[in-house]
Amino acid sequence: MPTLNKQCLLVKRPIGVPDEDTWQFVAKSIPEIQGTEVLVKIDYVSLDPAMRGWMNEGKSYIEPIGLGGVMRSFSAGQVIESRDERFAVGDYVVGLLGVQQYAVCHGDMLQKVDVRKAPLQSFIGGLGITGLTAYFGLLDVGGLKQGGTVLVSGAAGAVGSVVGQIAKIKGARVVGIAGGEEKCNFVVKELGFDACLDYKANNFKSELKSALPDGIDVFFDNVGGEILDIALTRLNLKARVVLCGAISQYNNTTPVEGPHNYVALIIQRARMEGFILFDYADRYAEALDALATWYAEGKIKFKEQVEEGIENFPSVFLKLFTGENLGKLILKVSNSQ
Amino acid sequence: MPTLNKQCLLVKRPIGVPDEDTWQFVAKSIPEIQGTEVLVKIDYVSLDPAMRGWMNEGKSYIEPIGLGGVMRSFSAGQVIESRDERFAVGDYVVGLLGVQQYAVCHGDMLQKVDVRKAPLQSFIGGLGITGLTAYFGLLDVGGLKQGGTVLVSGAAGAVGSVVGQIAKIKGARVVGIAGGEEKCNFVVKELGFDACLDYKANNFKSELKSALPDGIDVFFDNVGGEILDIALTRLNLKARVVLCGAISQYNNTTPVEGPHNYVALIIQRARMEGFILFDYADRYAEALDALATWYAEGKIKFKEQVEEGIENFPSVFLKLFTGENLGKLILKVSNSQ
Repeated sequence: MPTLNKQCLLVKRPIGVPDEDTWQFVAKSIPEIQGTEVLVKIDYVSLDPAMRGWMNEGKSYIEPIGLGGVMRSFSAGQVIESRDERFAVGDYVVGLLGVQQYAVCHGDMLQKVDVRKAPLQSFIGGLGITGLTAYFGLLDVGGLKQGGTVLVSGAAGAVGSVVGQIAKIKGARVVGIAGGEEKCNFVVKELGFDACLDYKANNFKSELKSALPDGIDVFFDNVGGEILDIALTRLNLKARVVLCGAISQYNNTTPVEGPHNYVALIIQRARMEGFILFDYADRYAEALDALATWYAEGKIKFKEQVEEGIENFPSVFLKLFTGENLGKLILKVSNSQ
Repeated sequence: MPTLNKQCLLVKRPIGVPDEDTWQFVAKSIPEIQGTEVLVKIDYVSLDPAMRGWMNEGKSYIEPIGLGGVMRSFSAGQVIESRDERFAVGDYVVGLLGVQQYAVCHGDMLQKVDVRKAPLQSFIGGLGITGLTAYFGLLDVGGLKQGGTVLVSGAAGAVGSVVGQIAKIKGARVVGIAGGEEKCNFVVKELGFDACLDYKANNFKSELKSALPDGIDVFFDNVGGEILDIALTRLNLKARVVLCGAISQYNNTTPVEGPHNYVALIIQRARMEGFILFDYADRYAEALDALATWYAEGKIKFKEQVEEGIENFPSVFLKLFTGENLGKLILKVSNSQ
């Protein structure tokens, strides 16, 4: 049995972009499990923009990560010791297990996954929170039924890439926004979006307008800032703006840039609505069934970018904000496998 | 029969606050009515913030007012000549008849009203577009059922004053925002709001926070700008922000100030939605029934501020934006009566 657990601790609340003093790495001995606890060896850590919000002090939809505590994350691994009869040694599990190599936890925090259906890493990606977020955001909050035009920002990212593919399954015309030619090519050629526009290009605004001759029925926004503002000018009557995130604003040290064109919501009788995946917990099974079926049928691809080494967590995490990731960003933290 | 019709024409598209060159007054001879036309003598002209938007060029929910055309407005008056069998001389009517003393129009543009139920002027106010806007905005877009906390900006204005009273009927705790002590007193003492805060007061932010110990379930926003921003920080889970208007922004010459705190919509899974009254045309009867019943039962008061003289239209209209009006602002344009 292993004895040491490398952990990434949050030791400072960052202002703006997290710097090297934000986290500290320690190696702690793994305690004996007690009562009905389970010991999980973590293989993969999920990197999600939302984690930046969890690092801030103050009221939000979830408690801030405690200073000195393990950096919170979704993680996937394998049970290596169990006093909970629901979990056997060898079971694969996911949960909010943190950025560390081992987690001692209660079984209620864990969800078993079937690695015969997909690789373990996909269960913190397309068949996990990423896919679930895309599913409920697009179909419930966005109310997409069939057809129409869907615009997705962060289209090459974890959630956006799945949103666009679900929208295609639902018969929509799908336009993505991503940063750089490589990502845009990936979005169109690999994921099957109808078009993808490079927000770094000089003619972005006019290109976006041309790509949306019939306006926007659902805008799934992962980015916020100027992109949200431009999209507001292209809304159709009764359009829905799904606020999934505002990654362009998460490291701001000045007030968040509000959408100047929000008055378009009045003129177009449109709706802008936020959501948090956790609220849909009682419907995860329905969504995971649908996602697994589409995956098995080859209708959805999950693109994962796996980086290695727990000590690289800070630099890998920041790739989310510099846009260096393609698809779901994952950190492999186990020593073996 | 009268022969001359004083009209207010829009002759310039204003940038920012409309100035004296924006409108021109003319006296034209009244043409003979043709075909199935109706001649209406206009008594009252409704002054609404939305009219500022109609003066701008460009795409909106309704065609811009044509340059050189009669300034568009809801107006109320009496039929004095009719070739439409649905309208008899002496009938009282309302419609989009413009800022003028007489209107030659088709009967489809007119709606008959019963002045035994309320004074004529109320049919362009609480029993007209003002009341309808309040009703559908609060109950449909805002989804208010029973109880909860409702915040209303522009609480002493035409729509806001009705919104708060309907919310009280529905058992909500109602907090208003208005400019100045006189208006706040009116809102609480005359209209029965639970509290009203003066946005011009130094301690406005902290007072607003104290007045909303249980947060906000529905925010009915007529104002936009900083008030919207502050309100976003007090939203409850699943709160609704009803965008009725953004009067603080209508005369802007710089880009509209966007709500910096819009990310609160994600954290609180809240919704911000705009609406336009015209979309509810097939349900006007239902709403007018409810409003007339509440009015007859003394549960709703309609506060109207009636100013006189068609030539005073420019200065009276601007009172909407300087906040000099209490309740519904109306201009009496008929010479007699």
